[in-house]
Amino acid sequence: MTRIEEKFKKLGIDNAPGQESLQDSAILDLRGEKLEGEFVDFSHGDVDAHPPIPGSLDRFIKSYEDGGKQAYSEYRGHKYIRENVAKKITKFTGVEINPNKNIIITPGTQGALFLAMSSLIAADDKVAILEPDYFDNRKLAEFLEADIYPIQLDYLNAPSGSSGIDFDALEAAFKDGVRVFLFTNPGNPTGAVYSKKELEKIAALAKKYNVTLLADELYSRQIFDNRKYYHMINEDVDFDKLITIMGPSKTESMSGFRLGIAYGSEKIIDRMEKLQAIVSLRAPGYNQAMLELWFDEPKGWLEERIKVHQDIRDDLVKKFRKVEGVKIRPTEGGSYIFPKLPKLDINIGDFVKVLRVHANVIVTVGTEFGPQFDDCIRLNFSQDPKKASDAVDRIIEMIERYRAK
Amino acid sequence: MTRIEEKFKKLGIDNAPGQESLQDSAILDLRGEKLEGEFVDFSHGDVDAHPPIPGSLDRFIKSYEDGGKQAYSEYRGHKYIRENVAKKITKFTGVEINPNKNIIITPGTQGALFLAMSSLIAADDKVAILEPDYFDNRKLAEFLEADIYPIQLDYLNAPSGSSGIDFDALEAAFKDGVRVFLFTNPGNPTGAVYSKKELEKIAALAKKYNVTLLADELYSRQIFDNRKYYHMINEDVDFDKLITIMGPSKTESMSGFRLGIAYGSEKIIDRMEKLQAIVSLRAPGYNQAMLELWFDEPKGWLEERIKVHQDIRDDLVKKFRKVEGVKIRPTEGGSYIFPKLPKLDINIGDFVKVLRVHANVIVTVGTEFGPQFDDCIRLNFSQDPKKASDAVDRIIEMIERYRAK
Repeated sequence: MTRIEEKFKKLGIDNAPGQESLQDSAILDLRGEKLEGEFVDFSHGDVDAHPPIPGSLDRFIKSYEDGGKQAYSEYRGHKYIRENVAKKITKFTGVEINPNKNIIITPGTQGALFLAMSSLIAADDKVAILEPDYFDNRKLAEFLEADIYPIQLDYLNAPSGSSGIDFDALEAAFKDGVRVFLFTNPGNPTGAVYSKKELEKIAALAKKYNVTLLADELYSRQIFDNRKYYHMINEDVDFDKLITIMGPSKTESMSGFRLGIAYGSEKIIDRMEKLQAIVSLRAPGYNQAMLELWFDEPKGWLEERIKVHQDIRDDLVKKFRKVEGVKIRPTEGGSYIFPKLPKLDINIGDFVKVLRVHANVIVTVGTEFGPQFDDCIRLNFSQDPKKASDAVDRIIEMIERYRAK
Repeated sequence: MTRIEEKFKKLGIDNAPGQESLQDSAILDLRGEKLEGEFVDFSHGDVDAHPPIPGSLDRFIKSYEDGGKQAYSEYRGHKYIRENVAKKITKFTGVEINPNKNIIITPGTQGALFLAMSSLIAADDKVAILEPDYFDNRKLAEFLEADIYPIQLDYLNAPSGSSGIDFDALEAAFKDGVRVFLFTNPGNPTGAVYSKKELEKIAALAKKYNVTLLADELYSRQIFDNRKYYHMINEDVDFDKLITIMGPSKTESMSGFRLGIAYGSEKIIDRMEKLQAIVSLRAPGYNQAMLELWFDEPKGWLEERIKVHQDIRDDLVKKFRKVEGVKIRPTEGGSYIFPKLPKLDINIGDFVKVLRVHANVIVTVGTEFGPQFDDCIRLNFSQDPKKASDAVDRIIEMIERYRAK
């Protein structure tokens, strides 16, 4: 097998969120009647139930009508948009972000993640990732032919307001030569928010071992229970060795515009721009203008969005908790729950397919987040509350039908 | 220097089109009065002078209003859009394109190029590119740590309707183990269209030496002088070893939406989708709908666009030809001219900066297309005809001011 063939062999997407139509369901063991009910796709949020920031369409129309000056931008994005966003991130974090040096606009947060990782990692470089964590982190590291150090999160037993990161393993990895550590806060799929202490410890270890940090804080505006959220950039870190990524695709439902940002190290941002120049040139020129609306939503809009999601979380978590053998951690930030199911008598991949064809529900299989999560499913609960609630009833009914005797 | 540092050291963008504001102009030798006149940016087309396909904004509004079902798509793009575009490409080329297997929608044609190259090339793989050809071809190959075989185009002496490719060098490269050959037709920056014979010969060599072809046919709808255009896919090639890329960013002025496609080999398209999943997930969901308008422009719209551009070409080529020592090939397809200038007494990089600060004109420096083109400049003449004409007068005046004695 050639090297390029090897690289692609590892890159599977058939079980990734949104790709479910690729799954083969020819030989499923379907038990009982099909559970009817309105289809719910928990693989991503429902932007009809929770629409984009008010005024989005009007802003786009203006952007299009502005013509050529809006259609093209520097690879790192329109200067006036960078200035606008940098000001808001400066306010959000309390750390001065220079619009010309410390920020880049990307095609979605995924774009930011790809550019950042590719700017930091060459083949055989040592990288630490978490398990479970956003499934593309591993895929990216694999594609870049990195030497991966997976660090475990004991998220089910860690106290609320902490991630459960295994610091002994993390320090051992750093000691062993890891150059980049990538983590998601709030956690995806765990929904855990990192404690101040955990972030301090990450910062101290990174400093001690000269490790670059890549903090994915995509969901940092959607924090529940009036909990305090701590940004990595507020810790005692080397500013040149930290990149934070974020974007309006989730909480703000702007995913259809494909916009993200990365902020932090000038050196890394410079590299990311160079790479952007050969990857996709720029985030779509017209779309970039939508970032003006971000952090400038109507008064009370964000609070209401958080409240609605917190209520959905409460409902779904309560339902799962009533099921014998299910373990679930209530989400502290973001829109994910990651229930661990009781022992079933079919494998998790087939169970997820059964849910799709026999219960009108799409969920993401736990093994996307690490091979050991073969008894977990992930749900993005940014859905219509009633439909989501009914769909979870159907999932629970299916758990009973397939529960191992 | 670490491997990742080495990779980025080669990736320069300061002289790339659209990045001119990064250029340092502190120590320029400015001669005579500044030439006033309306600013023209020849680094890319002017979408105000040549607006996007009629109905674009209305189609976007509908797309946005369609909500969640339009915001998200499979990584390779919305099925209904792939079906729509596949039908049109089938008609355009006469070759059946299966919408589920042979096509992917990407964030711009640059996105298609990146995904295709990254799907075919690992470190140390041998790749043939042309000189001069689209400047990112080399950058991409370098970033992927390929072993690059540059093949020369004798575009100034080749007969009209042929590229002037050096087939001896190409065959030698293939013989030496080149696995991928990438070329742009119509040529960028040459404006040359490949002859049927040339494409036949490329096909035969590719077959003989088992080389995968990547044909960038971005400008294949904008062919001048009623010339016949030949697609690579119509030659006797192994369908599994050919990818063609295209998109509506240029002729159709849709660049602000960032949309491209690649069609061809199922195996390569599958890889591209896997990669898209970690690079940017998908072309923006709302934007994808714009491809419905492509190839379905109002009757006569494309013909008029071609005519207008042909007239601009005629005007600018005529002007440059009057200048002693300038060599220029009239564009056969696309919107580029690549005049070779007489000997100047400043270097080409400084001359381009002089044009910007002292003549209100931006052009792209020839060395972006190969180090040997240090006496060439590239102009994208998709501009307002009068402004472009005046701007070329200013360029010519500057050539005289800096002509070597």
